[in-house]
Amino acid sequence: MTTQLEREIREQAEALSGRRALGDEQAAPAAALLRRDDVDYLMIAARGSSDNAARYAQYLLGSGARLTVALAAPWLFGAGHRPPRLHGAAVMGISQSGRSPDVVAVLAAARAQGRPAIALTNDPASPLAEVADVVVELGVGAERSVAATKTYLASLHALAQIAHRLAPLPGWDEMTARLPGLVAATTNAQLASRERFDVLAQSGRLTAVGRGLDFSAACEAALKLRELSGIAAEAFSPPDLAHGPIAALDPKGGLWVSAAADVDQRALELLTALRRRSGRTVAVSADDRLLALADVPVPLPADLPGWAAAMLAVIPAQAAALRLAERAGVAVDSPHGLSKITLTS
Amino acid sequence: MTTQLEREIREQAEALSGRRALGDEQAAPAAALLRRDDVDYLMIAARGSSDNAARYAQYLLGSGARLTVALAAPWLFGAGHRPPRLHGAAVMGISQSGRSPDVVAVLAAARAQGRPAIALTNDPASPLAEVADVVVELGVGAERSVAATKTYLASLHALAQIAHRLAPLPGWDEMTARLPGLVAATTNAQLASRERFDVLAQSGRLTAVGRGLDFSAACEAALKLRELSGIAAEAFSPPDLAHGPIAALDPKGGLWVSAAADVDQRALELLTALRRRSGRTVAVSADDRLLALADVPVPLPADLPGWAAAMLAVIPAQAAALRLAERAGVAVDSPHGLSKITLTS
Repeated sequence: MTTQLEREIREQAEALSGRRALGDEQAAPAAALLRRDDVDYLMIAARGSSDNAARYAQYLLGSGARLTVALAAPWLFGAGHRPPRLHGAAVMGISQSGRSPDVVAVLAAARAQGRPAIALTNDPASPLAEVADVVVELGVGAERSVAATKTYLASLHALAQIAHRLAPLPGWDEMTARLPGLVAATTNAQLASRERFDVLAQSGRLTAVGRGLDFSAACEAALKLRELSGIAAEAFSPPDLAHGPIAALDPKGGLWVSAAADVDQRALELLTALRRRSGRTVAVSADDRLLALADVPVPLPADLPGWAAAMLAVIPAQAAALRLAERAGVAVDSPHGLSKITLTS
Repeated sequence: MTTQLEREIREQAEALSGRRALGDEQAAPAAALLRRDDVDYLMIAARGSSDNAARYAQYLLGSGARLTVALAAPWLFGAGHRPPRLHGAAVMGISQSGRSPDVVAVLAAARAQGRPAIALTNDPASPLAEVADVVVELGVGAERSVAATKTYLASLHALAQIAHRLAPLPGWDEMTARLPGLVAATTNAQLASRERFDVLAQSGRLTAVGRGLDFSAACEAALKLRELSGIAAEAFSPPDLAHGPIAALDPKGGLWVSAAADVDQRALELLTALRRRSGRTVAVSADDRLLALADVPVPLPADLPGWAAAMLAVIPAQAAALRLAERAGVAVDSPHGLSKITLTS
């Protein structure tokens, strides 16, 4: 029996295709708001996978449109607190359900302070949408599995649509046409074999690394693997890893390298060094030298701009998390008793 | 033989005491810069332990002075990139050595854009200090052990001094007088027994949780335990943990709860729920109900304001990391071949 999670992973190509026109239309007012003279930076409030989408925005908007993106600390906006001043900020909340109370609280504070607010959500009738000036719908239909997959990719897609309006992304027209096909091909290739990622099953722990846009992919890879398969997976940017945590790499631990958007000589040297300290290695990249170093090479097409490659880079992690969870006998549609909407704040 | 690391942990009380006058003096121009009319938010660039100090600043400055703190993504400021626009920002770099190239790059970008820059560093002659408008010295003497301990506590202390100038911190005069004694007493108590944290030795993995100011303590606890003892330790705020990663808690994994600054009914319910999924639990708190739930209760004095309690909360983690590393036969002064200054960028 195909699980709901596998169906939703496989739906991603169609989901991107389906949301393209609506997303382009809704990206315009969001971008206009970010271009306002009184907006110096964007603060994004999000949790879980949506927070990893926020990291994608941090690197994408920071490098192209040169817009500073700050990730909110929602605790500061919670009950009993006088929230920080948001002068100079536009605020964006990313939430599939639009019902994470602490994300809604950040947008409500923005409104109370007269600051512009954008909601990225799959539910345009949600409390998050209600407190926003501009709503960008994910528009990918209901997501029933606890683990976010198609809404995650849709969030990246929506953020790229907004970024492109602020500063043109390389290869935009060609890539938006090709993306659904690339997503479908990547998904099919990664899900074709049930055993593809089995070498990680004995790892117990896993370190995911990536930098820039690849850091967001590494974070999402670690989150998916952790929440679904139960592996103790953690993501680092290479400099943060070198600042201490590298000490906890061990020959029994797995290594997940996301190098889809940015590979150079230093990345190769780093992977070589990390491999010496680690167990089985998965590398997601278009770079043959890097792939040759991995136990499980996951090749990506070579001609993609970074913003698109970083989107594709998360699909192998979704597939690995699904297959390793199935192998471990986890009920993948509601792993470990989790519920879809997290109301903790 | 007492290791350099243990000596430096034990020096912390004296270090805080010694830097008090200088720090107060240097905090004044830093605070003046943050009060400038054209400063809407503070961006902090840091790596490793210093990044956890930046989180402390995010919660401390955000709640008291209501100043928004953004954590920089230094990759955006690296070679080959046009860095994000910093209009409206003041920028702070935190680096013990003052020589992390990517932290220096963020401050250099601020200067190039005419934005005010503050350096928090142990070396006032470092490249970081050179590109800053205002230098706040940690002033705690050379730190030789790879793992930052006294410079970490000194960073928190310096940040509190700055915060207090922007908006008075509760109990400031009394606490600054008491802090060195409290640090000494906590350090002595935690280091007195070599076996105190042995129950974590078999954990292999460990989840640290805390919220608000306690989140910074949880992050630093996870980092110290990971880099020294090699345990796969990862920190989460409770809402982020509930968004998926809670699935990877398991009865063989340890749980480290930092609840020094903020305990309420919800925190107790959360710990009760987390305990059911976890193995041995350490709780650092002044709350008796919370301590009663832990395998290793680490009581803190009950009458401390959150900003001071969150400083003390990191000391038990330093002690645990030291003792567990010694037990595992790690060369604690240069664990796993790490070097003191990380030049990766």
